[in-house]
Amino acid sequence: MNNETPSSGLQLRSVVTEDGQLQLFLKSAPVPEPGENEVVVRIEATPINPSDQAILIMPADVATGETSGSGADTRYTAKLRSGMESRVKPRIGKPLAMGNEGAGTVVKAGSGAAAQALLGKTVAVMDGALYCQYRKVNVMQCMPQNEGTTAREAASCFVNPLTALGFVETMRAEGFKAIIHTAAASNLGQMLNRICQSDGIDLINIVRKQEQVDILKAMGAKYICNSSDENFMNDLTAAIEETGAYIAFDATGGGDLGSRILSCMERAALKGTEELPGPYGSTTFKQLYIYGGLDLSPTIINRNFGFSWGINAWLLTPFTQKAGMEKMMELRQRVANELRTTFASHYSDEISLTEALDKDIVAAYSQQATGRKFLINPSK
Amino acid sequence: MNNETPSSGLQLRSVVTEDGQLQLFLKSAPVPEPGENEVVVRIEATPINPSDQAILIMPADVATGETSGSGADTRYTAKLRSGMESRVKPRIGKPLAMGNEGAGTVVKAGSGAAAQALLGKTVAVMDGALYCQYRKVNVMQCMPQNEGTTAREAASCFVNPLTALGFVETMRAEGFKAIIHTAAASNLGQMLNRICQSDGIDLINIVRKQEQVDILKAMGAKYICNSSDENFMNDLTAAIEETGAYIAFDATGGGDLGSRILSCMERAALKGTEELPGPYGSTTFKQLYIYGGLDLSPTIINRNFGFSWGINAWLLTPFTQKAGMEKMMELRQRVANELRTTFASHYSDEISLTEALDKDIVAAYSQQATGRKFLINPSK
Repeated sequence: MNNETPSSGLQLRSVVTEDGQLQLFLKSAPVPEPGENEVVVRIEATPINPSDQAILIMPADVATGETSGSGADTRYTAKLRSGMESRVKPRIGKPLAMGNEGAGTVVKAGSGAAAQALLGKTVAVMDGALYCQYRKVNVMQCMPQNEGTTAREAASCFVNPLTALGFVETMRAEGFKAIIHTAAASNLGQMLNRICQSDGIDLINIVRKQEQVDILKAMGAKYICNSSDENFMNDLTAAIEETGAYIAFDATGGGDLGSRILSCMERAALKGTEELPGPYGSTTFKQLYIYGGLDLSPTIINRNFGFSWGINAWLLTPFTQKAGMEKMMELRQRVANELRTTFASHYSDEISLTEALDKDIVAAYSQQATGRKFLINPSK
Repeated sequence: MNNETPSSGLQLRSVVTEDGQLQLFLKSAPVPEPGENEVVVRIEATPINPSDQAILIMPADVATGETSGSGADTRYTAKLRSGMESRVKPRIGKPLAMGNEGAGTVVKAGSGAAAQALLGKTVAVMDGALYCQYRKVNVMQCMPQNEGTTAREAASCFVNPLTALGFVETMRAEGFKAIIHTAAASNLGQMLNRICQSDGIDLINIVRKQEQVDILKAMGAKYICNSSDENFMNDLTAAIEETGAYIAFDATGGGDLGSRILSCMERAALKGTEELPGPYGSTTFKQLYIYGGLDLSPTIINRNFGFSWGINAWLLTPFTQKAGMEKMMELRQRVANELRTTFASHYSDEISLTEALDKDIVAAYSQQATGRKFLINPSK
């Protein structure tokens, strides 16, 4: 198989220019030679996750997007969104690579036994810069797949599965017994539903459209609250009272949804007590984790929920470090075992590297909340 | 001394009525008889702290305040502020007592040795409901004062001193090395300056007026940032870079001051690194504690400071529980030892229980940020 590999491959880059543009382009680079414990993977499937979008396209006003050239010389250009100038300052003039996870075939292997054992195998990889045709990685970064598993099936082995499992582990580690999740009909939200169903954990799903309610109902979700409903606050309070869900994971970040969740938690906490609340409210500790930024507007916190609460950012990497190697190996093994069930991902669009620079396609994948989920196949 | 004690005493109460009023009135109650390990304290000095104001007067629109009657029959009446209806619902029709700390003379003592030892002594008390003339408390709630210390000097032994010490202990326990404090020229802020100066801890003082800058300068404070200055963000960032202050305690709560502090922390954290920040910013953990609500408007969080941060409520009682008995005894001892220096409190106004119902005086003490600090002397 080694002799089929070309001498060079394409890599996707995103750059912000001095004159206020975001550009996407392809860079040709030699296919690297693996060291003793390294392999070269031909990337065949790599998803566009929100963490990738943040660098790839988030600063751009995609309404101004234009695509020029063709093939390896294709270039996408858009103006920056207003207000982005100070945020992008550190990256001006620096072409950045993206793609935190993906899967493909090992086409070259170093001399070490572990590397040699992977030759020809389909592997999932978590290592950054995977929006490219050939990527050299350490064998430790590879999760070998069972015979018959495709790269497409294995493309999202890490970010969403480990994040969903991370929510459950965080809940347990901090002494909570049920979870609230927003944007709950997402790929990640659906995984979290399957995990909680199989582990017997109550999960309150917050969505904002009837079609999302329907998706979750069809999955057998028990608690679904639609934030567009007039009765949302009462529904959510009742669900919290029933489940004891005093920890929430919020993908939206902006606006007052997080604050409203904390208010409902406080209402539920006070319902159980006969006692008059003091000036500082209930003593029930209420935790909101913000793990995404679907809504980039400011977070509005109304503080009408007492004085026993925390609001924190939640990210996979610090969770991984806190959980430790042993726990993470256990979680990874679960993902590998349940890849086609609990952790199955679904994609609406599979695109090539060149198509990833098409202005209409860029406009589509830049929208995080459309229900479409993009997969790049750099070998296409 | 026992035979000088009358058979009844006055107690201050705050009630919210069904028809949307807040009323303050005095209630006469028998002076209680102490049990074996109890004493009765004649309260001679009890401060109006923000935690007391919250119940005492916060829901009222003091511009509508009226005072009627005189002496023990004085009554203060005001309309509720708009938007307060749902907050005060649980307390409607329930006359509430206030006064979390105070000091006075032990005029009756139970038969136990510890109680008898306190007879005639000046003690500081932390126990709630101290806005009254005679209060029965357990000896465990009393901090006996050195000979010559007055009730006025001992009135604020607990809330501000232990809160200021609690900030320093929290900083240490969470691995930070310097502190940012807002509303820094307050009584509490001045104590915190003296503690940090004597313990060699860098403290960044945030104030909003030049006269507050002057107060802190006169105390020898090294880092003072005026949030009304044009250069505030740059000044604060430079001070954080110099001190490594990644934990802040905010008395205001509302508005975007907390968010701006976190932004400056992030800027300072990124200044030290050559590396390009990822989409999630620096890995430096940034902590904001909100311990007060001088500004009741919503907290605005701009989230332009990466993904490594926490925002929590901070209260004395949970801190006390977490710190444990031994640590708290150590802190109390320090307060007793340094009551006339580090922990000295200053009052602008000393008022009687009846004066506390005067509409002009109510209007004055309901303003938390005027620089005036009120002490009630129920024995006046």
